[in-house]
Amino acid sequence: MSTENYSTDQGNQIQIKRVAVIGGGSWATALIKILTENGETNINWWLRNTEDISHIRAFHSNPRYLSSVKLNSELVHPFEDIKEAVNGVDAILLAVPAAFIQEALSPLTAEDFKDKYVISSIKGMIPEMNILVTEYIETQYNVPHKNVGVIGGPCHAEEVAMEKQAYLTLSSSNKKYALELARIMRNRYINTTTVKDLYGVEYCAVIKNIIAISCGIAHGLGYGDNFQAVLVSNSMKEIRKFLKEVYKVKRDLTASAYLGDLLVTTYSQFSRNRTFGNMIGRGYSVKAAQLEMNMIAEGYYAVKAIHEIAKQHEGLEMPITKAVYHILYDRISPIVEFRILKEQLK
Amino acid sequence: MSTENYSTDQGNQIQIKRVAVIGGGSWATALIKILTENGETNINWWLRNTEDISHIRAFHSNPRYLSSVKLNSELVHPFEDIKEAVNGVDAILLAVPAAFIQEALSPLTAEDFKDKYVISSIKGMIPEMNILVTEYIETQYNVPHKNVGVIGGPCHAEEVAMEKQAYLTLSSSNKKYALELARIMRNRYINTTTVKDLYGVEYCAVIKNIIAISCGIAHGLGYGDNFQAVLVSNSMKEIRKFLKEVYKVKRDLTASAYLGDLLVTTYSQFSRNRTFGNMIGRGYSVKAAQLEMNMIAEGYYAVKAIHEIAKQHEGLEMPITKAVYHILYDRISPIVEFRILKEQLK
Repeated sequence: MSTENYSTDQGNQIQIKRVAVIGGGSWATALIKILTENGETNINWWLRNTEDISHIRAFHSNPRYLSSVKLNSELVHPFEDIKEAVNGVDAILLAVPAAFIQEALSPLTAEDFKDKYVISSIKGMIPEMNILVTEYIETQYNVPHKNVGVIGGPCHAEEVAMEKQAYLTLSSSNKKYALELARIMRNRYINTTTVKDLYGVEYCAVIKNIIAISCGIAHGLGYGDNFQAVLVSNSMKEIRKFLKEVYKVKRDLTASAYLGDLLVTTYSQFSRNRTFGNMIGRGYSVKAAQLEMNMIAEGYYAVKAIHEIAKQHEGLEMPITKAVYHILYDRISPIVEFRILKEQLK
Repeated sequence: MSTENYSTDQGNQIQIKRVAVIGGGSWATALIKILTENGETNINWWLRNTEDISHIRAFHSNPRYLSSVKLNSELVHPFEDIKEAVNGVDAILLAVPAAFIQEALSPLTAEDFKDKYVISSIKGMIPEMNILVTEYIETQYNVPHKNVGVIGGPCHAEEVAMEKQAYLTLSSSNKKYALELARIMRNRYINTTTVKDLYGVEYCAVIKNIIAISCGIAHGLGYGDNFQAVLVSNSMKEIRKFLKEVYKVKRDLTASAYLGDLLVTTYSQFSRNRTFGNMIGRGYSVKAAQLEMNMIAEGYYAVKAIHEIAKQHEGLEMPITKAVYHILYDRISPIVEFRILKEQLK
């Protein structure tokens, strides 16, 4: 596979000067803030909601998410039409929940992606298809693997808004592309690094949302810090086993893009997946928890996809994923399921 | 080294029926609670403070720490004289801060340790000598390596008092001994497991206190969750490099005894080391922080020992340990030191 080593493409230097950002949520807003700190990168911003676009044009801030963030009006240009937004850009950055990406991109064709780089910041899987977002883009829009990148690493949008020091990991099989992304996103509060393990970073980012739900459930059930530490340690084994079966390359799972991302999601008060799990642990139904939160926790879809992929690999046991799946999809009581799970941990 | 594989000692089964517990703090109290849950293990409990002993005899609880814990009066026998306390026991469990162990054990000779097992639950190094507690016991009291064990794993005393589910890792080069410890400590809220990597578990437990101080400092300085996740991820690299140099055996650093222990200490509100670091980050002097906390954070001594050991190994870089050492011992400003440190993380 091409991630085994960086490609030896000796072509021209890659330059990313204009990026189309697809999505209007907090992560999209944070990434736009990061991308424009250098005073150079132009943003064509596609949002679904036209009222939000008017507000952004008038007041240079997103009315719904991270509204305290002042956007650079010279560099940030909102678009109502996604086809226009991607026209002429160097790269397309995807930042909508995985469950909505197919619909959001539906007006686009392979022609719209031609000769463009794609960056996914989505930490979820395509529902039903059970494939990664980058795999979907590669197959659906004929984007070459070397033109695809992923933004990983522990980085909550809320802390970006506050300009707290964070670290991003840019991954691509194409070293020059990863380095260019790292260059344009680096600033006084963001350090960047690169790895080549594209799918590995992406799978880990997906699974960590499942683990965050499990931590939330545990907390909701009254388990304490000792238990959560064991849950997270055991999840590293689960991630390692999964990646060994599904996408085996050499990687250091304790690096920030893997363990760091897992930690920030499982331990942070900002984590939507942990909050969702906490409500389930406290006795909310899935429906009630989703209504109360007014947003979708990516892990809800991820657990179905990962559980189904795991079932196709004989001998691949993922006890935490299985427990979360049983609770969310088979309506098994969290109390009962965690009584079984705790005997499988060590 | 003997930890490479479990010893193949085919002697009699090991039975631990009476344990002398040395120390009167919260961890000693929690371990006594755990050891007596089976209704069988007798405890000779040595505490320094004679008033506490009178209170325990009268009310069956420790007046100073975890006072809500009701002790089993038939099994728990407080002793004023340490020599009497260890007389006739099968095992001696050490649970005083590493800085006080030499003084606490000073009335004892090698004869008092003869044919006895020793269990260390101390997560610190012997000051000045820069050796592990188990190394000290082996050399000072002629205790054979196969008779020494360590209690590891993520387990805050406060949660033991509340009987929240926790996991302990018992490590010894002697499999039968480790299994016997695991047997007597297992109960409805404690799961136990065994590993043979005695010194590795102990070193990791020591270093994690340094990392917890660094996380506290970061928090005190205003760094957020993203930064802490990166700090902890990078600390795994630091621990791996240290152990590779100082005590190289095959181990899975993401197991609960290593990563789990690190997580509970770096993320828990109960962690004394994190609290100590937080005060340093907020501007307290070392002296003022120690006075305010009214207890010693083990990591304060650990960072000196680990830093000095690291200096003896050419090329062994430990940026987090170094930063904490500079702040605590060289009085370098945390702000300045963390500005340097954050550029070394990724």
